[in-house]
Amino acid sequence: MVNPDILNRLAETLAARQGADPASSYTASLMHKGLDAILKKVGEEAVETVLAAKDGDKLHLVREVADLWFHTLVLLSHQGLGPNDVLAELARREGISGIDEKNARG
Amino acid sequence: MVNPDILNRLAETLAARQGADPASSYTASLMHKGLDAILKKVGEEAVETVLAAKDGDKLHLVREVADLWFHTLVLLSHQGLGPNDVLAELARREGISGIDEKNARG
Amino acid sequence: MVNPDILNRLAETLAARQGADPASSYTASLMHKGLDAILKKVGEEAVETVLAAKDGDKLHLVREVADLWFHTLVLLSHQGLGPNDVLAELARREGISGIDEKNARG
Amino acid sequence: MVNPDILNRLAETLAARQGADPASSYTASLMHKGLDAILKKVGEEAVETVLAAKDGDKLHLVREVADLWFHTLVLLSHQGLGPNDVLAELARREGISGIDEKNARG
Repeated sequence: MVNPDILNRLAETLAARQGADPASSYTASLMHKGLDAILKKVGEEAVETVLAAKDGDKLHLVREVADLWFHTLVLLSHQGLGPNDVLAELARREGISGIDEKNARG
Repeated sequence: MVNPDILNRLAETLAARQGADPASSYTASLMHKGLDAILKKVGEEAVETVLAAKDGDKLHLVREVADLWFHTLVLLSHQGLGPNDVLAELARREGISGIDEKNARG
Repeated sequence: MVNPDILNRLAETLAARQGADPASSYTASLMHKGLDAILKKVGEEAVETVLAAKDGDKLHLVREVADLWFHTLVLLSHQGLGPNDVLAELARREGISGIDEKNARG
Repeated sequence: MVNPDILNRLAETLAARQGADPASSYTASLMHKGLDAILKKVGEEAVETVLAAKDGDKLHLVREVADLWFHTLVLLSHQGLGPNDVLAELARREGISGIDEKNARG
């Protein structure tokens, strides 16, 4: 099993990139460009996830979902949030009423 | 810290829902509708993530990212994949060249 | 050739629906829900356009692009704009430097 | 009033670009890249439309909707279709049951 700590390690790295020299890395550059640039990337990766899934290319699909999760982590970091906020929300739903709780909210 | 095992617990639950009576739960119903229905939800949640971020509503943003991750987990499960495939891909990038490896691929 | 006046006729109808009883029509209901609801529909129809195109289903593709254009007309109307603003922008680009003007801006 | 013929003129230009030297124009290059590249642009422009609308910037919104319509025209042209197919579909809906026909299809 993969060590799920990768999400926390990524979050720490992203927090360090915020405010770093934009020329120093892709992430620092993206964060420097600001919220709209990050949101465009989230939208792009969602569309690329759809395209990979329609092609039935599983390796490509995993890469696109990784890109999508990565850019949502950049978004969360930019907003002072992190993966634990999302995991806690997922756990909260499971705790209350199972993963179908969303349906009940419907 | 949140137990990141929530992703694996969700994946196990999703695997059990696949093929279950569509009337039994939101997830079973969505999986029964098939790939396009799941991909529409991924697209919807990405747009809702953008809207919540633009509103600067952090609580809402966390919920929408949770919805987005959840529906990508449904997609992965539907394709015989799981969160560990995505976490392994993220770890692989970190291992090779840091989280900016994507940039190098660019 | 189709009478392209359909865009103006739709715009007039949409203007009349704004502020109408939400129960009176789909459009009046959507406009009553407000900007975010309209934008979610624009996002949904964009994803459905992608899915129809990937399926290579031309009839379905035409319907989804019609849905997408229709919901952008609702958006424009909600913001006090209309199809002529978009057509004028497209004509402006053509006039200045051909349809590749966008590239030059890039 | 803007001459709505702009859509037909654009369609003629796009048809001429199909198969042209990719280096000759933005459009020829995009068509040469193929369906997925065009669909990514449709998705990007949809997200940029959402961002402009949330910013309440009407001039920007008109430009983004123009970008979105333009790239759907590229998509239609790439699939051997054109704006008249979409306008005819919109007129058909109007003819049958008004612009709320979509609702009836539900």
